[in-house]
Amino acid sequence: MKKIGVLLSGCGYLDGSEIHEAVLTLLAIDNAGAKAQCLAPNIPQHHVVNHLTGEAVPSESRNVLVEAARIARGAITDLSNIDTLDLDALILVGGYGAGKNLCTYAFKGSDCDVIPEVSKILHAFFKAGKPLGFICITPVIAAKVLGDQQIELTSGCDQETADNLEAMGARHIECTASNTIVSNKGKIVSTPAYMLETSIAEVSKGIDKLVTEIIAML
Amino acid sequence: MKKIGVLLSGCGYLDGSEIHEAVLTLLAIDNAGAKAQCLAPNIPQHHVVNHLTGEAVPSESRNVLVEAARIARGAITDLSNIDTLDLDALILVGGYGAGKNLCTYAFKGSDCDVIPEVSKILHAFFKAGKPLGFICITPVIAAKVLGDQQIELTSGCDQETADNLEAMGARHIECTASNTIVSNKGKIVSTPAYMLETSIAEVSKGIDKLVTEIIAML
Repeated sequence: MKKIGVLLSGCGYLDGSEIHEAVLTLLAIDNAGAKAQCLAPNIPQHHVVNHLTGEAVPSESRNVLVEAARIARGAITDLSNIDTLDLDALILVGGYGAGKNLCTYAFKGSDCDVIPEVSKILHAFFKAGKPLGFICITPVIAAKVLGDQQIELTSGCDQETADNLEAMGARHIECTASNTIVSNKGKIVSTPAYMLETSIAEVSKGIDKLVTEIIAML
Repeated sequence: MKKIGVLLSGCGYLDGSEIHEAVLTLLAIDNAGAKAQCLAPNIPQHHVVNHLTGEAVPSESRNVLVEAARIARGAITDLSNIDTLDLDALILVGGYGAGKNLCTYAFKGSDCDVIPEVSKILHAFFKAGKPLGFICITPVIAAKVLGDQQIELTSGCDQETADNLEAMGARHIECTASNTIVSNKGKIVSTPAYMLETSIAEVSKGIDKLVTEIIAML
């Protein structure tokens, strides 16, 4: 059975992983007859946001791995242990947590840094010819780490994000929520998901397609 | 467009709502062409559980409505405002939060109390002939509130829960995760979901079926 890593960045789209995208990814992998392995770095969240008001809560602190474990129902591995997992592919789930906890894109745009654990694993998978999937805002991580590899990515139709992706060396291609972009270089698939104002049903279609395409590459 | 309430109890299966069940319910409602309205009571969680270790964290406190807003992407209403929403049906999502925050089943079994807000809304929907859906452990809430109405419910095949449901006056019927039980009395549908050791794909089938049956009752 093929084993696909699902990289999370917390639990909740304003300070962690986008929960719908994460669950729909786990569903698509199970429906495709593959096995999902949730992963997250064992680091503090950049901050905690109250999802009712949208405001940061400076008095609280949470851990990315511990919160991501909520989505994974406890079945999650510290990203630093990924070498022992023998994964066939890796999918990055969106949400602001990807741009706040896995890299500094939310604060620095195309001048962002990606945390070494994530950068290392993306290089390793790309070099090994293992498929990589990028949902929502996570193509910015792909562009920062692999932008010198002539890869193609989508973040939907947002001009600022598209400009930033191109500033980091990737080619941006517009895409709807129910669709994906498969890069001509590398085994790289992306889908915009909640980068667009859309519905959970449309996001589900895009993620299903991404997972199907990734599994077809194995 | 039909409007279906989705009652949450936090965010994370050990102290709040089971996240997969919640997202799969929102997906099924959207796929069926209806509109979901997330709801949660504005009350403190019973406690906070670290989902990586499974241990309670006495130093932390969280609010049910604020945490449930993570699943709802902020689009959630305080359960006490439900009268103004004009909902056509209501679905209760599982997770220990349902048995710890919405009632005291996790601590008192069939001697549990259901919080007045939830008890009131279930009576009102049942009396109005509006369909009610119960996922996972939430049939215990149905049994406690409506057990004198000769309703039929499922919690899968767990004998202890089945015994408790019957002690509270309901009839228990065994069921698999991909299936549902439709009560002969009242417009009541239930599905076991993660009460069984199962997969997200099977839970998805059961929840899809529950939502389809509820919409057919409208």
